[in-house]
Amino acid sequence: MKLRLGMIGGGQGAFIGAVHRIASALDSQYDLVAGAFSSNPDTSRATGQALGLAPDRVYGSYQELIEQEKARLAAERVQVISIVTPNHLHFAPAKLALESGFDVVIDKPITFSLAEAQELADVLKATGRHLCLTHTYTGYPMVKEARHLVASGVLGTIRKAYVEYPQGWLSSFAEGSADNKQAAWRTDPARSGIAGAMGDIGTHAFNLLEYVTGLQVEKLCADINVVVPGRQLDDDGAVLLRLSSGASGVLVATQVAAGEENNLRLRVYGDQGGLEWQQADNNTLLVKWLDRPAEIHRTGASYLSAAARHNARVPAGHPEGYLEAFANIYRNFALHLQAEQAGETASPEALDYPSIADGLRGMAFVETVIASGRSDQKWTEFPSI
Amino acid sequence: MKLRLGMIGGGQGAFIGAVHRIASALDSQYDLVAGAFSSNPDTSRATGQALGLAPDRVYGSYQELIEQEKARLAAERVQVISIVTPNHLHFAPAKLALESGFDVVIDKPITFSLAEAQELADVLKATGRHLCLTHTYTGYPMVKEARHLVASGVLGTIRKAYVEYPQGWLSSFAEGSADNKQAAWRTDPARSGIAGAMGDIGTHAFNLLEYVTGLQVEKLCADINVVVPGRQLDDDGAVLLRLSSGASGVLVATQVAAGEENNLRLRVYGDQGGLEWQQADNNTLLVKWLDRPAEIHRTGASYLSAAARHNARVPAGHPEGYLEAFANIYRNFALHLQAEQAGETASPEALDYPSIADGLRGMAFVETVIASGRSDQKWTEFPSI
Amino acid sequence: MKLRLGMIGGGQGAFIGAVHRIASALDSQYDLVAGAFSSNPDTSRATGQALGLAPDRVYGSYQELIEQEKARLAAERVQVISIVTPNHLHFAPAKLALESGFDVVIDKPITFSLAEAQELADVLKATGRHLCLTHTYTGYPMVKEARHLVASGVLGTIRKAYVEYPQGWLSSFAEGSADNKQAAWRTDPARSGIAGAMGDIGTHAFNLLEYVTGLQVEKLCADINVVVPGRQLDDDGAVLLRLSSGASGVLVATQVAAGEENNLRLRVYGDQGGLEWQQADNNTLLVKWLDRPAEIHRTGASYLSAAARHNARVPAGHPEGYLEAFANIYRNFALHLQAEQAGETASPEALDYPSIADGLRGMAFVETVIASGRSDQKWTEFPSI
Amino acid sequence: MKLRLGMIGGGQGAFIGAVHRIASALDSQYDLVAGAFSSNPDTSRATGQALGLAPDRVYGSYQELIEQEKARLAAERVQVISIVTPNHLHFAPAKLALESGFDVVIDKPITFSLAEAQELADVLKATGRHLCLTHTYTGYPMVKEARHLVASGVLGTIRKAYVEYPQGWLSSFAEGSADNKQAAWRTDPARSGIAGAMGDIGTHAFNLLEYVTGLQVEKLCADINVVVPGRQLDDDGAVLLRLSSGASGVLVATQVAAGEENNLRLRVYGDQGGLEWQQADNNTLLVKWLDRPAEIHRTGASYLSAAARHNARVPAGHPEGYLEAFANIYRNFALHLQAEQAGETASPEALDYPSIADGLRGMAFVETVIASGRSDQKWTEFPSI
Repeated sequence: MKLRLGMIGGGQGAFIGAVHRIASALDSQYDLVAGAFSSNPDTSRATGQALGLAPDRVYGSYQELIEQEKARLAAERVQVISIVTPNHLHFAPAKLALESGFDVVIDKPITFSLAEAQELADVLKATGRHLCLTHTYTGYPMVKEARHLVASGVLGTIRKAYVEYPQGWLSSFAEGSADNKQAAWRTDPARSGIAGAMGDIGTHAFNLLEYVTGLQVEKLCADINVVVPGRQLDDDGAVLLRLSSGASGVLVATQVAAGEENNLRLRVYGDQGGLEWQQADNNTLLVKWLDRPAEIHRTGASYLSAAARHNARVPAGHPEGYLEAFANIYRNFALHLQAEQAGETASPEALDYPSIADGLRGMAFVETVIASGRSDQKWTEFPSI
Repeated sequence: MKLRLGMIGGGQGAFIGAVHRIASALDSQYDLVAGAFSSNPDTSRATGQALGLAPDRVYGSYQELIEQEKARLAAERVQVISIVTPNHLHFAPAKLALESGFDVVIDKPITFSLAEAQELADVLKATGRHLCLTHTYTGYPMVKEARHLVASGVLGTIRKAYVEYPQGWLSSFAEGSADNKQAAWRTDPARSGIAGAMGDIGTHAFNLLEYVTGLQVEKLCADINVVVPGRQLDDDGAVLLRLSSGASGVLVATQVAAGEENNLRLRVYGDQGGLEWQQADNNTLLVKWLDRPAEIHRTGASYLSAAARHNARVPAGHPEGYLEAFANIYRNFALHLQAEQAGETASPEALDYPSIADGLRGMAFVETVIASGRSDQKWTEFPSI
Repeated sequence: MKLRLGMIGGGQGAFIGAVHRIASALDSQYDLVAGAFSSNPDTSRATGQALGLAPDRVYGSYQELIEQEKARLAAERVQVISIVTPNHLHFAPAKLALESGFDVVIDKPITFSLAEAQELADVLKATGRHLCLTHTYTGYPMVKEARHLVASGVLGTIRKAYVEYPQGWLSSFAEGSADNKQAAWRTDPARSGIAGAMGDIGTHAFNLLEYVTGLQVEKLCADINVVVPGRQLDDDGAVLLRLSSGASGVLVATQVAAGEENNLRLRVYGDQGGLEWQQADNNTLLVKWLDRPAEIHRTGASYLSAAARHNARVPAGHPEGYLEAFANIYRNFALHLQAEQAGETASPEALDYPSIADGLRGMAFVETVIASGRSDQKWTEFPSI
Repeated sequence: MKLRLGMIGGGQGAFIGAVHRIASALDSQYDLVAGAFSSNPDTSRATGQALGLAPDRVYGSYQELIEQEKARLAAERVQVISIVTPNHLHFAPAKLALESGFDVVIDKPITFSLAEAQELADVLKATGRHLCLTHTYTGYPMVKEARHLVASGVLGTIRKAYVEYPQGWLSSFAEGSADNKQAAWRTDPARSGIAGAMGDIGTHAFNLLEYVTGLQVEKLCADINVVVPGRQLDDDGAVLLRLSSGASGVLVATQVAAGEENNLRLRVYGDQGGLEWQQADNNTLLVKWLDRPAEIHRTGASYLSAAARHNARVPAGHPEGYLEAFANIYRNFALHLQAEQAGETASPEALDYPSIADGLRGMAFVETVIASGRSDQKWTEFPSI
């Protein structure tokens, strides 16, 4: 049975709301049946109508949605609530939703601050509900394969990890134009938090690196810049990393690399070999060896790990992309919830989606990297979380 | 409002049925509410159950589905029927569905033979219903852009077109193994028709070439081979093409290129420039010029044509793939039907999906290419269709 | 000791003369000491002076060069003569040079016609001298590796071979402009012979295909076109090939693919795997397998065959290119001649350069492909040569 | 007239000596006529013999070479001396050569220490001779084009520069094996100086970045590591950079990226566009723009700058590589010396080769980056040199 889904945020014009809707629909695991799509009731209503929702399930505020859905019959009310608002509006609806008995999907970064994330972790624990955090990139099949290869030990002991996320879309003062809502909130400290690029895309890069390597950042040294005049938050940064087990690395996140799209790219090297993955060619994982030819591992191929195969839908040669990666997160969360409903043990593949732990470390990254950017000391310790 | 969808074929284990389900769900334009998923009633029932369908709308045969759905209330019965069976089971359900007042989606090739396709064209005309043919590859945004650039004239007069579709999955006698249903029916003349590779993937290549260039094949010269011993239908071929307006080209389709996935690739050259697109890098269109740097045109970019922008969902840098291209066909068909329901004129973008004309030319290609393969003459005329 | 080299043709402004000079100099195996660089004595003299040659060794005609060099002391006279004139001026100087006791390097195609090539073969046999034909592309290290892999059998029985050589430089009527000497002679039947594109680049593609696969073309079916109005020779063609051992293939050569450089590309498939090489990425050989990841084989790597290692100069990661490939042909020819001078047996690597056999088959290709282009029959037999 | 060349170092088995010989021979601008190829006279003699040198011009030491060549007639003695020894043996022969009236080519890094480099600069100034430093990578045509594009202003104000040079060849303790001379001296502080990877390849990356951007590093923050147990010098590092004009960047140099060849890669971004070049695809320069398609600029194309065209030899589509880039440095140095001999003004293209200024900044980089690696402070100032 499909899970009944409600959405908070994602009114017409929003980017990520539409992505969440496609991702949840793609595998027919969810039915979007309710929404509070905007703090503007007219926008919310218009969005709900365009989506074909019943008018009485389109709400003017998140509180209204949670309250009224809670009041409905169990067989009818939403089971999962997706929160796709700007960062400053993640915590309150997430807390209320969990406390009202709903499972929750939140877009990243999980909250406005680390303190909020920690409080949310407590709520989650207390309520026993489930939370899924949409760090999209770990949903790609070949990222799963990369993680699998590292864990399998074939690359040897990991020594180096390089991750970069260059974008160019904030090369100009885009927040100055009236019609660029995306730029406006993402560069606004009141809505984004203390970090701009580091919160928006640095957290993705950080999450990808830790997910694939299985290592943790232990200290870091950041050069954080506001490049575009007039901008309030960082739009650029580079970070030296010291990782657990003696490895080290570099993280780059910038939104002023003019002409770049979203070329997230990860390279990891052990003493026996290395691997390289980039979003622009997401169905390929390059695997490199000390003394023999590099290999091209491909989504959908028969030789891949169970994790990689589980997260693909079509045979090799039919390219999957960003929406499928996003859908994998939704699908695995659904499989977890459905297993629980059925009283079954969820498979390792079902449990493989980003959650509160990723959210806590992501917020710790935001706070540590910004602190390091302001420091004259080379290294800043990463908190134990 | 979503369109209510019924499906014929696509029982568990089938490849293309699952693809049609994802493609129709992705944009929340269709609700799959009924199905005759298999000629085996148990398989049909199990599939319907896994998909969460109401048991009374899972049928044991296509006739049953069409009859019983037709008997339901207008507000409840399916509006569109997708036919995703092997080739020999396209015509009869399509004809019955159209004559029973349903619109139809058919997987390619449209029918078992050209004669069937011509009869279906007559039925379509007589009933006034609509038909959509899922030639996936013309659904890619950068294929739309390619067609737009050719039509705009910036490449000058088109002189050459090369299209190739190399696969390796039939390099061995796969139809000999009990569990390879895909190989079994696709190499069986009783289910596929007179052509193997040429029907299965040659028609895609042919359709892509004609779609992008706006030209038509006028005569051809084919080398058609059965490479793998014991196989009953062609698994390999190469075709010289003479196109309208004096252009010429080459079409290659093979299923014995060991190690190849589905690397469909098209190159077109005019007297001022050329273009190159390949499925393995589907979000890129290379545009080449006589005397200045080649350009990399990308899905989602602001400089693209209306056609390319309409068929993408996310900004540049978020890769879209095969399922999105497939979904574009479903979505445009839905937009067409919805416009008609609303008494509005459908936009050019909504009308841009493969239909009966593509089906007729595709079947003519199959028959002409096989005839040429058997001929000692160099050139075989392509029928005027 | 370096070999003393004389050159016929290659006056200032010529393209291929400069390439031969670099290729012969690169490995310090030859000293260019004499030349008849042009039929215009002033041009010849000016070229010789610019190259720092002694004035008395710059000649006004090839006859003069051969006669006077022959008259010099053995320790002083040229040992090898490179002929880099247009096609119609290959045979006479080559014949005279061989008959006068010199070894010869000739640019491809070997002669103006197959009859000339056959006569040259007789002269070569009669004189016992040596001849080297500069089919550049078989000099690339990864082409050597490709040939080695096919011969080793790891790809299984070869079934398919595709070779293509698209260029765009003759997209316009370049021969109409006064300063395009290259276009002028290459499109002139009096200087090029009966073929344009097929002689100029088709022969390269043909040679590459036969060299790598070890198979021979047995019959072919050609579509030969003159695309640019006013042109006298073919500038475009596509050829279906039947190869020995039951394999088949396609050869494309065109000079009107606007925006293309010299993207020679070869793909070969056996029943166990395939390979792909292209000049634009000449240091990479892709090796593909039925059921495991494709591999990236790279120039200079330790795992390569002796043939590939012999034809590279620097470790992997230092890209080598066209001039090095060309130099490999000169170098191997020098190693052969030096071994003979020393009374030693030349190594297999030294003997691995194109020679008279390649020239004969190349001219047979030219004549067969043009004949097929004019024929209404599908298949034209390739002569046994 | 060719320049007479002598070589110090580069005995059989050395890597870079052979490269210098090919690079100097390729354009027929130099004649190698003398050498002191090894401190072992037998090795020196054997090398000279293999190269076909006159026995009386093969010397047992650099002092002998310089003294005896100086004593020869002006028309006979070497004019340029190439020093291709390990780093600790650069300064003394260079100084003696300059003071003896010879022009000098030195492999990078210019000397063992910054102090030596400064003294060499004084000698150079005092003697009025010429010095050329073989920072290979700035010899590539498309690197010239990159520098030209930045200088032309089309990319706007430069904001970011990323350069990386990942290698894998020192992933193991290669210096422990008796037959790896390259690894032995490059990891030995007595021969390499205070830096390993940073001196060997970090200086190349640094030089490339400053050359293309026209900016200077003003301060830096380095993470310098010895990854392989037992190694004496750094084999890995990452450096945050603050550049003149407010730009910033990252430099990565590592020799423990298992499976990497020499993938030197540079990206530069201005406020209007960016560019990307990598050695693995050295004939391509990607040029990216804020709002229009990225462009592929190619070696040999007609639209390139004079600088890029001057440094290529063949039309677009004939790949040039590492040896040609190296040869460009030798050729431009020759053109400079020849212009001076002829009493003419050298062209800007002839003067465009790395020299003492690059050497001084390179050694300053080595000392600053190692100091920063040892510091707890974030930023270390780069000396004004």
